[in-house]
Amino acid sequence: MDVTPELNEQSKDPLYLQLYSYFKEEIKNGRISSLTRLPSIRQLANHLNLSKTTVQIAYQQLLAEGYIESKERSGYYVMKIVGESFGDVTSDSPDTYSLDKPKAHNNILYDFYMSRIDLDHFPYSKWRACSNQSINSDQRELLSYGDPQGEMGLRLAICNYLRHARGVNCSPEQIVIGAGTQTVITLLCQLVGLDRKKIAMEEPGYHGVRQVLDQLGFNIKPIPVQEDGISMAELEKSSAHVVYVTPSHQYPLGMVMPIAKRMKILEWAKENNSLIIEDDYDGEFRYQGRPIPSLQGLDTHGNVVYVGTFSKSLMPAIRVSYMVLPKRLLNAYRNNLFQYDQTVSRLHQKSIQIFMESGEWERHIRRMRNIYQKKHDVLLQTIKNVMKENVKITGQDAGLHIIIKVNTSKNADDLVKIAEDVGVKVYSTTNNWINKQNVIPPLILLGFGGLSVQEIEKGIKRLHMAWLPFYSVD
Amino acid sequence: MDVTPELNEQSKDPLYLQLYSYFKEEIKNGRISSLTRLPSIRQLANHLNLSKTTVQIAYQQLLAEGYIESKERSGYYVMKIVGESFGDVTSDSPDTYSLDKPKAHNNILYDFYMSRIDLDHFPYSKWRACSNQSINSDQRELLSYGDPQGEMGLRLAICNYLRHARGVNCSPEQIVIGAGTQTVITLLCQLVGLDRKKIAMEEPGYHGVRQVLDQLGFNIKPIPVQEDGISMAELEKSSAHVVYVTPSHQYPLGMVMPIAKRMKILEWAKENNSLIIEDDYDGEFRYQGRPIPSLQGLDTHGNVVYVGTFSKSLMPAIRVSYMVLPKRLLNAYRNNLFQYDQTVSRLHQKSIQIFMESGEWERHIRRMRNIYQKKHDVLLQTIKNVMKENVKITGQDAGLHIIIKVNTSKNADDLVKIAEDVGVKVYSTTNNWINKQNVIPPLILLGFGGLSVQEIEKGIKRLHMAWLPFYSVD
Repeated sequence: MDVTPELNEQSKDPLYLQLYSYFKEEIKNGRISSLTRLPSIRQLANHLNLSKTTVQIAYQQLLAEGYIESKERSGYYVMKIVGESFGDVTSDSPDTYSLDKPKAHNNILYDFYMSRIDLDHFPYSKWRACSNQSINSDQRELLSYGDPQGEMGLRLAICNYLRHARGVNCSPEQIVIGAGTQTVITLLCQLVGLDRKKIAMEEPGYHGVRQVLDQLGFNIKPIPVQEDGISMAELEKSSAHVVYVTPSHQYPLGMVMPIAKRMKILEWAKENNSLIIEDDYDGEFRYQGRPIPSLQGLDTHGNVVYVGTFSKSLMPAIRVSYMVLPKRLLNAYRNNLFQYDQTVSRLHQKSIQIFMESGEWERHIRRMRNIYQKKHDVLLQTIKNVMKENVKITGQDAGLHIIIKVNTSKNADDLVKIAEDVGVKVYSTTNNWINKQNVIPPLILLGFGGLSVQEIEKGIKRLHMAWLPFYSVD
Repeated sequence: MDVTPELNEQSKDPLYLQLYSYFKEEIKNGRISSLTRLPSIRQLANHLNLSKTTVQIAYQQLLAEGYIESKERSGYYVMKIVGESFGDVTSDSPDTYSLDKPKAHNNILYDFYMSRIDLDHFPYSKWRACSNQSINSDQRELLSYGDPQGEMGLRLAICNYLRHARGVNCSPEQIVIGAGTQTVITLLCQLVGLDRKKIAMEEPGYHGVRQVLDQLGFNIKPIPVQEDGISMAELEKSSAHVVYVTPSHQYPLGMVMPIAKRMKILEWAKENNSLIIEDDYDGEFRYQGRPIPSLQGLDTHGNVVYVGTFSKSLMPAIRVSYMVLPKRLLNAYRNNLFQYDQTVSRLHQKSIQIFMESGEWERHIRRMRNIYQKKHDVLLQTIKNVMKENVKITGQDAGLHIIIKVNTSKNADDLVKIAEDVGVKVYSTTNNWINKQNVIPPLILLGFGGLSVQEIEKGIKRLHMAWLPFYSVD
């Protein structure tokens, strides 16, 4: 679709007005259909030989009048116009998006989205080199179907890493690679059996996995989370045969399950012959003390499935997660799921393998841990200095997000809205609760991976100013 | 793991024997664990400064004695040794593999696997260029999570292609991208509802999809396939509300559903308000006459889900398929499945988009169509010249495989075995039947995408020699 306005030089209107009117007309009578992505400000400015500002003002005007929307870090898209055929579709997306994906919003300056990683320090050229090694005619077989379980070379590399970095006991044939944690969990559910089984989840817990379990018809038992993680008493009551936990950094509350409780839950699994799904989604990043060994590493009865991902540690874009199956599940996997083709690109698998074998992976993790540590420290320090006793911090010292409990009578959704109005995007935990009435008053999720140290400071200050009127005075 | 033998120059044994004994000992006492991939013959020869032949003989010896196995186009792997802990696992894999993946076999010279594509004419450098454009710090946002439905840019490119090449009526918001057809079908099943619904499938039909439907607990109704595709009479009897068909090139039998029957099945869907899943897995390749428009393009009531893939047309390795949802399913998709993260690499999506927008895609399809046409013609001609009336060919003129019905009293599995013994890998259709007793006498699948014209000729001649004693004399 060509969206190149012919600007009428004769017109008395300033250029930005001509530009704005051109797009407005094109969009109104559907010559540019909704969802179309407009050229970037830079592109169009170059193309028309106009100043960026001119284009920017025109776009701002279109934004203001709702003809286009700006999708965060993605560009400008034509909005659905009423009566226009795609209407019924796009009209949904805002709600669905708002569930947990960062919502398209015109002027967000600081987005504390928990799933954003640092993109400024990614080893672009090194990754490009690894990726190029996977595409050349000397190893053309890499273009064909690979091992349905995942490439042996990558499984071996992951295995070696997990053994020494996460204390996971595994051999390559226990590792199953899949396109993201939801894909891996979907496979695992089919191993466990889709017979509406009872499955226990932390309350609050990771909604991305809950969604899968819901869809597959499991009977989900929400188990309250305590200071040291999931409540064992409630778990025992639930009579669930499978439990999904995030012991290294509870999602979303962020506490670490201490060794004592790890032994308890392993004991529970042993007595009930139950399965524990351990999601170690950001276990690479720990800023205080020694990492606690994974549940899987402490398990001696093959009751733990360890789930890991490259989304936080490398990048979400390539969609690579994996699980480590206990040996007792391997035959079931081979017999029932081996007809499933692998879901992760074989080229990416090879690239990651090369990246890991070259030692670049360990360097990358160390480098990123330092970078995130700095951001983490600045975030905590700024909150303490600026917000003082108006908030209580939890879930620090690990991962890429923390939680603040705000001392206010407002609820979390109000606080999110107030922040958004001043250009700061923060996130409520509401979506992570099964029983919304259980939601403890107002918890706010702050992801810091994707923001610079300066953005973190400015963002928190701005947040504080916006919330100032609403803090309760004790 | 370092598998570098120190060769004792003093030894009176020839080098290959020392090499062989070294590996044998290492493997026997587990210092090289099972499933480990050995260095390639070339690598090890270079590394030890030995002739390739020396290494090859040593490997052959290890193969012969069952210490290692050669995985087709993948390399040499250490076999499980009895009593060795991984035993219970690997012992399964041969059976599971043999279901449809090419089985590891020591000396296969010609593999007529239906899912192999031509790797000699792939535009490696062009693809590398596209892929590099997707990894650079100027567009770092590409490293983050993308649109759960798939990148808008790629959906637009696919949409434009489908409109003019396959006569599909669609707009980008109807397109959902997923990591392979099984992933796309899994999503679709969740839209349809996992309440043990009746789903009709062609008998024989694509087992890769049947596996998914089985796993998700659907009630699968096998519908016999006639000269012109699925039997409408049986379909009506089945009272199924969903049917999965491959009208452009029935899998595996290969017939094309004529326009008359297309109208009939659309009529059936309209009357029963049923859903048709149209899998157009190799619709890009048609060698005779005009491509018949897709069912989706003929449908006027939104009853068809069109499913396509890049596995045949570009490469299987990147795992990219997509479906085109009828608008009536879009709200359900947005409301129920929008929490699912996209399963395809965002980098690959961007690369394909660039590849398509640059016009390289159309060129690639045209080029490959000519190449496959030549292979297809040589295959048919050779079979006619060599096997004469001992076989009957069906399913020609489209796609990357044909079927031959062999005039013999032997069954398909015997024929496959006999062929394998002379180094020719061919495939039985048995796995594609739900009721094995329905299997029509011996049908053999011959894929030709991955073989050169010369290999096709030699392979067929060798096949003929091997089968010669078993042809029936009418």
